[in-house]
Amino acid sequence: MTKNSAPTQKISFKQLERAQCGDSISLNVCLASLKYNSDGLIPAIAQQHDSGEVLMMAWMNQAAIEETLRTGQVCYWSRSRQDYWRKGEKSGNWQTLKSMKIDCDGDTLLLSVDQQGPACHTARRHCFYLVVDNNKVAINDAPMVDPDSLYK
Amino acid sequence: MTKNSAPTQKISFKQLERAQCGDSISLNVCLASLKYNSDGLIPAIAQQHDSGEVLMMAWMNQAAIEETLRTGQVCYWSRSRQDYWRKGEKSGNWQTLKSMKIDCDGDTLLLSVDQQGPACHTARRHCFYLVVDNNKVAINDAPMVDPDSLYK
Repeated sequence: MTKNSAPTQKISFKQLERAQCGDSISLNVCLASLKYNSDGLIPAIAQQHDSGEVLMMAWMNQAAIEETLRTGQVCYWSRSRQDYWRKGEKSGNWQTLKSMKIDCDGDTLLLSVDQQGPACHTARRHCFYLVVDNNKVAINDAPMVDPDSLYK
Repeated sequence: MTKNSAPTQKISFKQLERAQCGDSISLNVCLASLKYNSDGLIPAIAQQHDSGEVLMMAWMNQAAIEETLRTGQVCYWSRSRQDYWRKGEKSGNWQTLKSMKIDCDGDTLLLSVDQQGPACHTARRHCFYLVVDNNKVAINDAPMVDPDSLYK
């Protein structure tokens, strides 16, 4: 916020489409301009930085984004608990931020992360363990550890 | 639908958490059980099958999912146009489905795809071309072709 608490300026993501590689805008202006949904949330995809594996998708509000950037530990907003969800706080399986990207129309985030242990609450490495196989959907991955041991 | 048009049975994704690798359920039951939002939509992440690059995130309804599986060409639901969005129909830059995965709580899809040319309407390969860099957000990628040539 500026000293006189004026609302943060906003931009249209449309304006950035023809910007040149290397051009930049203020982080505060960009975060204020994101297209949060009616609950004030934006989807964030977490991708393991070295393997490229897509681990999970969850939701953030602006404060969760700011905390994630400030601390370097990924913090989501839990829609089921209606509270901040500091990934790893209970399980010890932290998700460390490597970089954050924003998409062309400002309505999705892509987080490059270093995930310690399982990203999924089922103790699987990632959440996408159900795979469509013709007229069936099959379980495609096994837990890394006993799921009962995750949240003691 | 069954012959007497009974509603398709649904499952809770919670039930699948302890299923064994290789176990499966019916595709129809699974698609009917997905957690579509209040607009009947579910987010779908598209990842390039060989490079692992996350190309874009868009939304599907159940009919778009079924069409995508039937044709092997990715079909989203355009929230801005309120219509089916057959990726590549106007630009020629088709997105061919390699596999479809569903996450642990049935509210996100992960599509492994083969994207021809740019996935982004700005003519960039992917949509995540804005990268957070300290207190700035920088343009990180250039268009692959002249964006004006995409939708002739």
